[in-house]
Amino acid sequence: MRYELYYWTGIQGRGEYVRLALEDAGADYIDVARERGDNVLMPFLRGKREGAWPFAPPFLKAGRMVIAQTAAILAYLGPRLGLVPGGLSAEIYAQQLQQTISDFIVEIHDTHHPIAASQYYEEQRTPARKRAQVFRDERLPKFLDYFEQVLERGNGRQALSRHSYIDLSLFQLVAGLDYAFPNAMRRTQKRIPRLRALAKRIAERPNIAAYLASPRRIPFNEEGIFRHYPELDAR
Amino acid sequence: MRYELYYWTGIQGRGEYVRLALEDAGADYIDVARERGDNVLMPFLRGKREGAWPFAPPFLKAGRMVIAQTAAILAYLGPRLGLVPGGLSAEIYAQQLQQTISDFIVEIHDTHHPIAASQYYEEQRTPARKRAQVFRDERLPKFLDYFEQVLERGNGRQALSRHSYIDLSLFQLVAGLDYAFPNAMRRTQKRIPRLRALAKRIAERPNIAAYLASPRRIPFNEEGIFRHYPELDAR
Repeated sequence: MRYELYYWTGIQGRGEYVRLALEDAGADYIDVARERGDNVLMPFLRGKREGAWPFAPPFLKAGRMVIAQTAAILAYLGPRLGLVPGGLSAEIYAQQLQQTISDFIVEIHDTHHPIAASQYYEEQRTPARKRAQVFRDERLPKFLDYFEQVLERGNGRQALSRHSYIDLSLFQLVAGLDYAFPNAMRRTQKRIPRLRALAKRIAERPNIAAYLASPRRIPFNEEGIFRHYPELDAR
Repeated sequence: MRYELYYWTGIQGRGEYVRLALEDAGADYIDVARERGDNVLMPFLRGKREGAWPFAPPFLKAGRMVIAQTAAILAYLGPRLGLVPGGLSAEIYAQQLQQTISDFIVEIHDTHHPIAASQYYEEQRTPARKRAQVFRDERLPKFLDYFEQVLERGNGRQALSRHSYIDLSLFQLVAGLDYAFPNAMRRTQKRIPRLRALAKRIAERPNIAAYLASPRRIPFNEEGIFRHYPELDAR
């Protein structure tokens, strides 16, 4: 099956979690907007196409099915791409973890947009500073500690002991946070040895290494979810 | 199977979406913390119990499995309680919609907590007013229009033409928004006839009507996600 991924062209964004899964598995896919422009997304977002109606990108076209929401797309692709261990409990555990990653992504995004996604960062700088401080002090350690502990416990357990799309998503989280909050992330270094080792291992997987070195990997920038604004990072 | 639902006792919160599904289906379940106190959640949240490690409540114990994240719990329960039409595409469509509902819930919550979930509303009143205005003007109509259109298109389609846990969750959204933002919701009245009819129909289902009239339904209050602060509502 040739999968069709639909996502905005200028940013990694939420589409990147799907892209990493497709790339890692060597799946046959088209990154449709990058070939034909962002306008190809619009008929889907206006409900003019067959299949489920997406609220927002990314969405995946798989045959006649349209699947939106990153965690739902990965729940679908995981078993088909060999990116989740077999069995109901592993699949559901992966879904729960990916949905927790989605929650984390919202909080990362809202550090620079605490008031309105529709307004510029510059219009919400003061609340952004406050939210970013709470994020660095409370939320970042809480989420990272959680995933570190899941990896620690996962080693001896079946559910997520094998490679999965969760590993790819955690790699992306670490890479993005290193870009956006280099100082804050440096301080967490010793708390997250397993996440660090995982991120390194994923970056070295042949298909991922080739992808990261290719023009298909859009560089991080200040239009996406992970933005580097020095005033939002730790000193 | 007797399901065990774990959620904080004082609020409807995210646990309510699971509770509505269990109640509507007449499932055998225990609302564990309401019988034994909030402390029963702690060993799970500290990773001291078997099974998947929840980041936060609600979580469901189903036999030896532990499932967290509202949308993952409902993806699991849906087919088992007859609360999703059969077939892969309907199940995935429901997952995508429930995950979109989860995103909406975060935005509803953040109207009163735009800076820090760990701080009181009173400490973030000024940014809350700004965020709530953007929510009322942009996000509330966008989400409601989307679900209205999904219902409109769903009528003629298989995927969600039958009763499902999505209907129950949409009922809860409408009920909560009516409580939190009565003026803003009154203005949307004409835009969402299908959502209004759905909410009315769900409230009249025998099991739901009995549940809503019972002490098991915790009243809305200013500790939960849907809070009525008049200064955050429209005039």
